[in-house]
Amino acid sequence: MVHVSSVPGSCYFYYPRLVCVIGVRDESKGTTNFAPVAWTTPLSSDPPLFGACLSPKTYSHQLVLKTGEFTVNFLTEAHAALADELGRLSGRETDKVKALSLDLEPGETLATPILAVAYVSAECALVERHHVGDQTLLVGEVHQIHTTPDAFDADGVLRIERLNPLLYLGSNRYATTRSGRVFPVGGATGAAD
Amino acid sequence: MVHVSSVPGSCYFYYPRLVCVIGVRDESKGTTNFAPVAWTTPLSSDPPLFGACLSPKTYSHQLVLKTGEFTVNFLTEAHAALADELGRLSGRETDKVKALSLDLEPGETLATPILAVAYVSAECALVERHHVGDQTLLVGEVHQIHTTPDAFDADGVLRIERLNPLLYLGSNRYATTRSGRVFPVGGATGAAD
Repeated sequence: MVHVSSVPGSCYFYYPRLVCVIGVRDESKGTTNFAPVAWTTPLSSDPPLFGACLSPKTYSHQLVLKTGEFTVNFLTEAHAALADELGRLSGRETDKVKALSLDLEPGETLATPILAVAYVSAECALVERHHVGDQTLLVGEVHQIHTTPDAFDADGVLRIERLNPLLYLGSNRYATTRSGRVFPVGGATGAAD
Repeated sequence: MVHVSSVPGSCYFYYPRLVCVIGVRDESKGTTNFAPVAWTTPLSSDPPLFGACLSPKTYSHQLVLKTGEFTVNFLTEAHAALADELGRLSGRETDKVKALSLDLEPGETLATPILAVAYVSAECALVERHHVGDQTLLVGEVHQIHTTPDAFDADGVLRIERLNPLLYLGSNRYATTRSGRVFPVGGATGAAD
């Protein structure tokens, strides 16, 4: 393909990304805040670690440092409007659980609840944090996963046709997946060299 | 939704993810190795930092520590077979550029080339690395971006309908995107609280 050069910051080149809703308790208010974050990645298989980038200015960041735990919750495309609302409301000013009538389920290994509407959620204990540029990378050890029945096939692969995972494109735009290719022989991308 | 509990490691809950092909020079051989990585995330806007997780055992990891730089290259769904091949071949044993007849373009700010077939590539200078569990998070400062003309719209959002970015699902499965929702009022997910 023919390329043109572009300065960093002029395009969201690293999208689409899974929308990940971070849940963190505010112990002083007796509430849980939920905020969508697009900059997340698995970080390790053994131990199972998951990372989420939050600005140190955010309410969620402030709360995580107090509780030492958070949940991650993934939504289907049908809940794009919910993700957008969660991103627009300020948790400092608004109890989003009340304002959006969110159903929660208790965590099994943590005190932090998960979002009932999520097709998969994970309970994460904060084990490390790294200041990287203008964000903090919060590193959570995954202690428990909650999934809807049959969300994953026998290989542990998400049934995207059934679930339509919500992807974020930048700005106020969302997308989802469509089925793609399966290769007959092995070659997991994560194991590349 | 109804949830069932699951132990960590039993499902790829954090997929789909963009396939990101990391390019790193092997100065001793005069070649460049390209390996697909799924565990990546932007880490900071200012400065613009991008992170990629690599096992310290990998050839690419070893090379990045020597050169202090790498490129990231994103492919369309049409190049799923190429991504799979790049993940299956060992760069230690095979010059993938020769074996797969890859066309390269020179970097502008780095000595590391980009993949000509990519719809977007970025040149990254290694500025930090963090050992996290069984992986290393390589933190690159983005010095230059190369895109195909019209890859992004006026808002900097990827034109997914045109490009069909390649997503990885785990195992040997790939997918791409289909158009989703646009919300009329602001509320960028990344700015959530």
